[in-house]
Amino acid sequence: MELSDREYLERLFEAFYEVGALPGGGVTRLGYTALEDEMHRRFGALAEALGGTVETDLAGNSYAFLAPAEEYVLIGSHLDSVIQGGRYDGVAGVMAGLLQLRRAKEAGLKLPIKVAAFRCEESSNFGCCTMGSGLVTGQLKEGPEKLSKLTGKDGSLLGDVFASRGLSLTPPRITGVKSYLELHIEQGKVLEETGTRVGVVSTIAGPRRWKLQLKGLAEHSGATPMSMRQDALCAACEIVLAVEKIGQREAARCESVATVGVIQNVPNALNVVPGAAELGIDLRGSRMDSLDRMEQDTLKAAREICDRRRIGLTESKLSELDPVSMDPGIQEGLMAAAERLGISCRNMPSGAGHDAMAFAPLFPTGMVFIPCKKGISHNPLESATLESILDGADVLWEYLRGMD
Amino acid sequence: MELSDREYLERLFEAFYEVGALPGGGVTRLGYTALEDEMHRRFGALAEALGGTVETDLAGNSYAFLAPAEEYVLIGSHLDSVIQGGRYDGVAGVMAGLLQLRRAKEAGLKLPIKVAAFRCEESSNFGCCTMGSGLVTGQLKEGPEKLSKLTGKDGSLLGDVFASRGLSLTPPRITGVKSYLELHIEQGKVLEETGTRVGVVSTIAGPRRWKLQLKGLAEHSGATPMSMRQDALCAACEIVLAVEKIGQREAARCESVATVGVIQNVPNALNVVPGAAELGIDLRGSRMDSLDRMEQDTLKAAREICDRRRIGLTESKLSELDPVSMDPGIQEGLMAAAERLGISCRNMPSGAGHDAMAFAPLFPTGMVFIPCKKGISHNPLESATLESILDGADVLWEYLRGMD
Repeated sequence: MELSDREYLERLFEAFYEVGALPGGGVTRLGYTALEDEMHRRFGALAEALGGTVETDLAGNSYAFLAPAEEYVLIGSHLDSVIQGGRYDGVAGVMAGLLQLRRAKEAGLKLPIKVAAFRCEESSNFGCCTMGSGLVTGQLKEGPEKLSKLTGKDGSLLGDVFASRGLSLTPPRITGVKSYLELHIEQGKVLEETGTRVGVVSTIAGPRRWKLQLKGLAEHSGATPMSMRQDALCAACEIVLAVEKIGQREAARCESVATVGVIQNVPNALNVVPGAAELGIDLRGSRMDSLDRMEQDTLKAAREICDRRRIGLTESKLSELDPVSMDPGIQEGLMAAAERLGISCRNMPSGAGHDAMAFAPLFPTGMVFIPCKKGISHNPLESATLESILDGADVLWEYLRGMD
Repeated sequence: MELSDREYLERLFEAFYEVGALPGGGVTRLGYTALEDEMHRRFGALAEALGGTVETDLAGNSYAFLAPAEEYVLIGSHLDSVIQGGRYDGVAGVMAGLLQLRRAKEAGLKLPIKVAAFRCEESSNFGCCTMGSGLVTGQLKEGPEKLSKLTGKDGSLLGDVFASRGLSLTPPRITGVKSYLELHIEQGKVLEETGTRVGVVSTIAGPRRWKLQLKGLAEHSGATPMSMRQDALCAACEIVLAVEKIGQREAARCESVATVGVIQNVPNALNVVPGAAELGIDLRGSRMDSLDRMEQDTLKAAREICDRRRIGLTESKLSELDPVSMDPGIQEGLMAAAERLGISCRNMPSGAGHDAMAFAPLFPTGMVFIPCKKGISHNPLESATLESILDGADVLWEYLRGMD
């Protein structure tokens, strides 16, 4: 008896299940470790069971295909996880890829497909994300010098790890990719809360990160009248709320987000008016004009608040990445495919980063999101249903079938 | 040649100068240590040089007087300091007391005076404040059992320290006190900023301290839309600003103050919407109705904010001390004395605690504040002028002379 698609997905999920499993639930499968190797070995075995061929590249990524081809659609995601992560982040996309290969075997496609399992998408081991996909697309900002000195969680240098595996920090660029597709869990709760079965990603947000340092005057909390204070924490709190308001305004316009995730207060004592504070701000959006507005308005608000409160302000930009757009034609194609299948669908930005970011500047790229329970990810509680993976895989297949 | 009063104060200041002096400035003279003993030894020598008699009590406090008396005015403060403290906190009041003794020697007074140097007013060594004055007035909240187990900065138990010194944690109550007077540096900057030479304390503020714990939802800062967040830090910041506003309103009415000195944010990471936060709140005021209002309004605001933002709230009261009023007659007498001398004077609350708190519930008690530079105290930069100490001492003397 042939397995149904759902049963096949279940088999795939079970094949990966025990690798890096933690007693308390969830998994740890760090990039470029033996546990990730085992995930790739199992990926290879599953692909071969479909009659596929498996190759690896000099960054350690695995590719499965039915027949060699000059040009192909690449469908991929990653097999590593964060520390104490879940079983769906990355793996769901690879499972969906294998299901396309299984269907292609019977149906055939004008443009053949390859399924990719990328290495080390999470920054959890070496502090650098999308490493496998970034290396073969030449999209990593860090050069080989810097990369070779990155230190893993076990203390080993990435340069040594690559040398011992016969890998290269300057691998040949990937060729033949006509387009890149990726299915991923949303890692947010928009789909769940809106009752939508799949999302088609419009853009992957670019984060801009700022550190603001506030200098007031630490004084006796009992002996300093309210009117004479230079309370750094009060100024910081006004800024936090201003950033929230800016985020809400831009969310309404452009689905941007603005977060103050970090606050440090000095001396942080009950009997002292706070004398200094520090804020870490994360602005993300798909549109450059929105990012620019959020950045300018945040700094403007911070300056006005600190001026008014006689608080010193030091601004430093921590990092900046531009948003990456998914290919408009692919977005339309995926949306149309979902509509044909009667699967509710939503065009939406991705706030989190993905392997697709490495492909989008070079090749037409698209992403399909599926809901995950309560939006929880990077956590043993991460959960998605096989039905959702099947929904996303169906949309991918419907799109692939309809391609010219 | 007889020394002028100013020269005499300078001599007193120099007599104490080197005890516990720190290379980087300031002093450390912890209570019930050899350095504090040395301060008391020097105090005794200075009093004896005036022809005075010096006695100690079973709490280790020192008293100087010209002749034994059934009833007397007690003028005192302390000789210990915080870690890396200044040379004026406490010592200025003892110096002013010795100057009264010097003047009394020539002039005589209807009601004789005693000068007290109390032990361990700061909580820096054993975590308990106004220990010497609190023990002989029976005003310490902690019983002898609990006190004996307090551990000093060097690891020794207070019970052992007292036993080795022949002291008692249940000393006889002080008797014969007709009234208690204390001069102290303001430890705030109201006098300096208003250009006032002395303050007459109306009340010593009672602190009420609260811990508020906020529980939101930690989520991906990129993948969680603004409208779906339960951001614990944003709620905390609204509360901080509400507390500030409540303090400002009560400051205008009753000179109260309200401070959020402590904030903890969890997980405090740039890419996570804050999931939990904790605030430490310090409300101080001289009037019970104002303290009640501030407390109620703070909790009301916190509940409204957390309800609106779907944030869980846990409230815990950390401590509560009632405000202590200075004797109205003494306040009037000190104000009138300043006026007669043409010394600008201001009736004002004390936000910080003092030895006078231990006497006020039992005896008519009054306090005179003098300015300290920029309001800085508990810091090597603490500074006051001898002229200011002389101003305060003049007011005390003018008041003592005029007493019935």
